[in-house]
Parts: sequence; structure tokens; C-alpha cells
Amino acid sequence: MSYKNFPMVPRVIFGRGSFNQINDVLAPKRSSIHAPFIFLIDDVFKNNAWLTSRINLSYDDRIIFVSSKEEPKTTQVDELVEDIILKSKERPSGIIGIGGGSLLDLSKAVALLITNEGEAHDYQGWDLVKNAAIYHVGIPTISGTGAEVSRTTILTGPKLKLGINSDFTPFDQVLLDPELAKDVPKDQWFYTGMDCYVHCVESLNGTYLNEFSKTYGEKSFDLCKEIFLDGDLSEEESQDKLMMASWHGGMSIAYSQVGVAHAMSYGLSFLLGVKHGIGNCLVFDHLEEFYPEGVAIFKQMKAKHSIELPTGICAKLTDEQFDTMIRVALSLEPLWENAIGENWKETITPEKLKGIYKKI
Amino acid sequence: MSYKNFPMVPRVIFGRGSFNQINDVLAPKRSSIHAPFIFLIDDVFKNNAWLTSRINLSYDDRIIFVSSKEEPKTTQVDELVEDIILKSKERPSGIIGIGGGSLLDLSKAVALLITNEGEAHDYQGWDLVKNAAIYHVGIPTISGTGAEVSRTTILTGPKLKLGINSDFTPFDQVLLDPELAKDVPKDQWFYTGMDCYVHCVESLNGTYLNEFSKTYGEKSFDLCKEIFLDGDLSEEESQDKLMMASWHGGMSIAYSQVGVAHAMSYGLSFLLGVKHGIGNCLVFDHLEEFYPEGVAIFKQMKAKHSIELPTGICAKLTDEQFDTMIRVALSLEPLWENAIGENWKETITPEKLKGIYKKI
Repeated sequence: MSYKNFPMVPRVIFGRGSFNQINDVLAPKRSSIHAPFIFLIDDVFKNNAWLTSRINLSYDDRIIFVSSKEEPKTTQVDELVEDIILKSKERPSGIIGIGGGSLLDLSKAVALLITNEGEAHDYQGWDLVKNAAIYHVGIPTISGTGAEVSRTTILTGPKLKLGINSDFTPFDQVLLDPELAKDVPKDQWFYTGMDCYVHCVESLNGTYLNEFSKTYGEKSFDLCKEIFLDGDLSEEESQDKLMMASWHGGMSIAYSQVGVAHAMSYGLSFLLGVKHGIGNCLVFDHLEEFYPEGVAIFKQMKAKHSIELPTGICAKLTDEQFDTMIRVALSLEPLWENAIGENWKETITPEKLKGIYKKI
Repeated sequence: MSYKNFPMVPRVIFGRGSFNQINDVLAPKRSSIHAPFIFLIDDVFKNNAWLTSRINLSYDDRIIFVSSKEEPKTTQVDELVEDIILKSKERPSGIIGIGGGSLLDLSKAVALLITNEGEAHDYQGWDLVKNAAIYHVGIPTISGTGAEVSRTTILTGPKLKLGINSDFTPFDQVLLDPELAKDVPKDQWFYTGMDCYVHCVESLNGTYLNEFSKTYGEKSFDLCKEIFLDGDLSEEESQDKLMMASWHGGMSIAYSQVGVAHAMSYGLSFLLGVKHGIGNCLVFDHLEEFYPEGVAIFKQMKAKHSIELPTGICAKLTDEQFDTMIRVALSLEPLWENAIGENWKETITPEKLKGIYKKI
């Protein structure tokens, strides 16, 4: 038996308005005037001076606005890396990701691919990365994915939707400023928050669970219930708590794994480009069989916030399309093993998954 | 407003029996065959082959057994550093502390003083350390102090009991093996566990608290109640949970501080050499005024485990001795500010503290 030597984010700032400290945080990390900081920012912040005016661009530093309308792709990482290398006189001083899970994952992947040869899809899987990434900083502007603290970056590649899981993936620095989440639209707030909730349910009900992951998962689960179900919280309290729920939920995966909802959501996302947060919700809504208590609470949360999930998503899919989703979902073996146990292949068959997908 | 950029332990292993991995963890960190690993181990493990036989000593590596009967002193750190430097051909590859809070704090301080000139007491205070420590690893064998995750190392110096608080203090690696706590005597288990419980109460009721520290403190508090009050836990569950309670309790101090019990316990310990865990209990038992709910629960925990605290500790002290304790306690300004607020000096007077000390 060998236990994972889990890499934690070595530096974290938490506080409302802490984004004001970004320039002070970066300054000592500049390796030369020719080595720029590259800010990858969700393009919803384009022309948003409240955020961007606080970033001091010096020397060759630049902002690249990136759309998060689609889930991040390996080809997108490769293009960003090529662009950054071509336009920088020296290897950049750092990559700063500002946005939700998509931007954070893209930033982690770009930082890795600057120091690792080849293409992003070469590294999809577990522990395939050889070299440390360049300095990279994560600044979430929406909470739930846990991408700020995880050792993965989930990308849609040519054949699979799969993470680059490695000890070099986690950020070197995270800045948690709950104020940055102030303009998140309600639906997106709910779907992304549910990513965190689903992490907790999947981690806490998984076979991989140990006491380390359990304590983080339980705290995150309790916070989710406070925010989405019981709570009579102010907007600020809710933002603060959800940012911490996301953090602890991400930490809960350290010695655990996600499960059925994530595996199937990746299939949905690979084929149809469904965003991860809503994809999780679409699947999780039909997983009473695996997570009876978790799904019951989820339905209460949905009702409380008057969230109507779209229906008929898979109504007109061909058999071939179902097969693609099922192939992607079944490729995520550790997720199934965590969810069901070592003998998961006995019960998790293509027919079984097709039956669930058909309900969506 | 500027928020602390909190340093987290960058690598952590959790698992029963994970101590077996110690040699694999250290191997890549050896800087040369002349740069030994120095193991500082609580001398209760002397002749304990179950533990020591699992450490492969190579080249000039050595074990130094250290008594934890007394609280760690700055002079003790200076002596250890001198001995290590004199006997090592090169700067050591790393310091590995194995024991409770005393051993962990000593190890952190030794690792710092190997790269920072002068004596340990020069660095007691906040952010006085100039250079990064050498690689240092913490392996707790008793849970509660949070020393495994904190950015301080509490030492008794010539004038004060005070921590070396710095960003360089935290361990580079922590290994959490709950099995190592299997032979802890019951009283010590309780007193050290209560250190964690008191951290939580002081952090959660402090004026410095923010949502980051609060979520960690709440989880740790809940675990303490499960372990010491409600619980019908197996011994293994209890060990696992207390190790995580200690971890989260330590993390809760990140943006917070301890409070009245710690400040006064330091005074008691400075003058009389009272060990920190029991010192906290002796003080906390009389702090209903500051922490009514926390103290009530503490008394229930004491009763449940039939713990009889010694009495009359301060019965025969001279006025001069009271003054010494009070001077040490009042020197810990951030603790009082956290506990009472900015205007703490209006109510926390020498007379007030004397009144409390006299009850002990």
C-alpha cells in the first residue's frame, strides 16, 4: 500500500478585495523584463475596468481574453502556447488565470505545455507530465469547480475528455477574492455551485475515501447545504462560503475521486459541448440509484432556486452518438472504480449508461 | 487593507502505515552523500524498533533523540544547530521531526537556524526570518497542536515564550500516519487534543476571523466534539479524526489567531515549565467569562474522560512570579487583540490576569 504524496497549493490569499494585491504578489516572480506575465482572462471581463484596471501591465506583459462559452480544448491550449512562445522574447515569468474552471484549467495546461514538449493531448491521463510548469496563479471569479486547488486540468481532446493529472498541475499561488464573483448570473452560479456539491457527494460516497478527504468533503457538503438549501445568507456571506466550499470540495478529491455524474457528464460534454456545470446537473438529476440522499437534496436545491433543467438533450441522438458518449464515460476508469468499487464492470455496462443518457 | 499570503505545506501524505514511505519521500531530496538527513525524534521512541527500524540511515544520516518532557527552548535549538553543523560535512539535506508539538517545533526552528545567522531568540516574533530554511519534514506522533501545519514554532526564550512566526517556518513535507499515535497515554491524548479544541474556540470567537479560517475552525471543532464528547468511535477512527482535527485547527489560525488561553498558558509555561497542552487546560477551565460555550463543553469533555486537572499550581507563587507570568502573557499582543478587540488594554489589566492565575 502506498499513499499519494499530495501537492497542495503552496500560497493562498483569501479576502474581499484581495485582488488589489495582484501586482505585489507577482512583482517578485518576474524573471526578467523580457519575460512577461500573461493574463488569461475570461472574456466576460473585456471592457470591465473594475477588474482589468487593477492589473499593472509592465514591459511585455499582456492580457489574452478567452471565451469560456465552450469547454477548454487541447487544441486551444496548443494554440495559446504557440502564440505565447512566438510573441515572448523569453519564457514568460508566469501565467495568471482569471475566470471560472475553464480559464483556470486552461491556465494550468498552458503553464505545463510551455515547459513540456509536444501537444496537450499527449499528457491527458495520470502522471504523464515530465517537467515542472512555469509559475502559474489561479484567481477564480466563480466558485464551485475546485479547479483552483486540484491537481488536474480537464480538457476535451481529439478522442477523450480527460484531465492532465500531475503533481505539476496545481497552481503555485491562488488568490481567493469572493468579491470577484459578484456579477455571476444566477443560473451559472447554481450550475457551478452544483459542481462542488456533486464533488462532495461523489467523494463522500466513493470507495477511495479516507479520513483526510472525508473531513474536507463533509465541510464542503455542509457549506453547500447552508448556501443552497438552509441558508438565509447575505449575498456576501454566500459568496464567501461558496468560495470556501469550492476550495474544500476540491481538496476532498485529494485522496478520493469523483464518480458517476462526472464520468457521464464528460461524455455529454465531449459529444455535445455541454458545459461541465450544467452537464453534471443534467446527469445527476437521474442518479438516485447511485446517490439517493444526494440526489434528493439536489432536487430540493433546484426547487428552492426555481432552476429548470433543459430536457430532451439526448432525444434525437443516433446510436453512434450514444456510443461516443458511452465510450468517453467508460474510459474514466478511476471514477467508476471510486463510485462502484473494483468490480464496477460487472454492473456498469454500455446499456446501463444508454438508459440513463436517454432520460436526459 | 492587505491580506496575508498564507504559506501552505506544499506536500502531504495521509494514511495508516504511510510512515513506511519515509525513505522513498526523502531519497530525491538528498543533496549529496555528505549532506545527511537529521532525524529529531521524541525520546519516548528510543529502543522502539517498530518505529525506528523503518528509517534507513544512509551515509552520515543520524537520529538525535530529544526529550519532550520540557517545552522547547531557544537555547536547545541553538545547541542542536551547533551540534548538527559541527558534525555534518555539508549543510544537511534535511531535518525530519518525529514527535508531538515540541519535536515538530524544534525541527522547524533547527531547519531555520541552519540558514539564518545568530541565535534562535533573535527570531522570536513576527516575520524576522531572512532566509529560507533547509528542507524540513514533520511527522506527528500525537495530534492536537497543529504544529504540523502552522507558520510558527513556539519557543521559550530568555525573556519570553514566543513563536518564530514566518513564511519560512512551515514544513516542506508533512506525513500524517494516524497509526503513530497508537501508544499515546490517555492523559496526554486528552491534553494535546484539547490544544486543538482550544485553538478552534479561540479562533472561532476571535475578532480576526474570516470565512477561510472559519470553515477550517468549524470542521475541527465538530471533529473534536465527535472525538471527545459525542463519539462512539473505534480507536482507529478516533486517531484518524484527531489527526485531521489538528490539521484543520492549525489551518484555522491562518487568518486568525489564538486567544486568552494561549496567552496565559504561555505565561504559566514560561515560569513553571508547565507543558503547553495541560497549561491550556488549566487556564481554559477558568475562562467562562471569555468563552462561555466553549468552556462548558470543555468541562463536559473532562468529565466524560474522568480527567482531573491538578490544582494549587499557583498557590504558593510570589508577587514577582505572578508579575513574570503576566508580563509574558501580556506581551502576546496579537492574541489579545484577536480575543478582545483593538481596545483590549482597557479591560485586560495585570490585576485581571492575576485574578485568573490565582484560581489555577
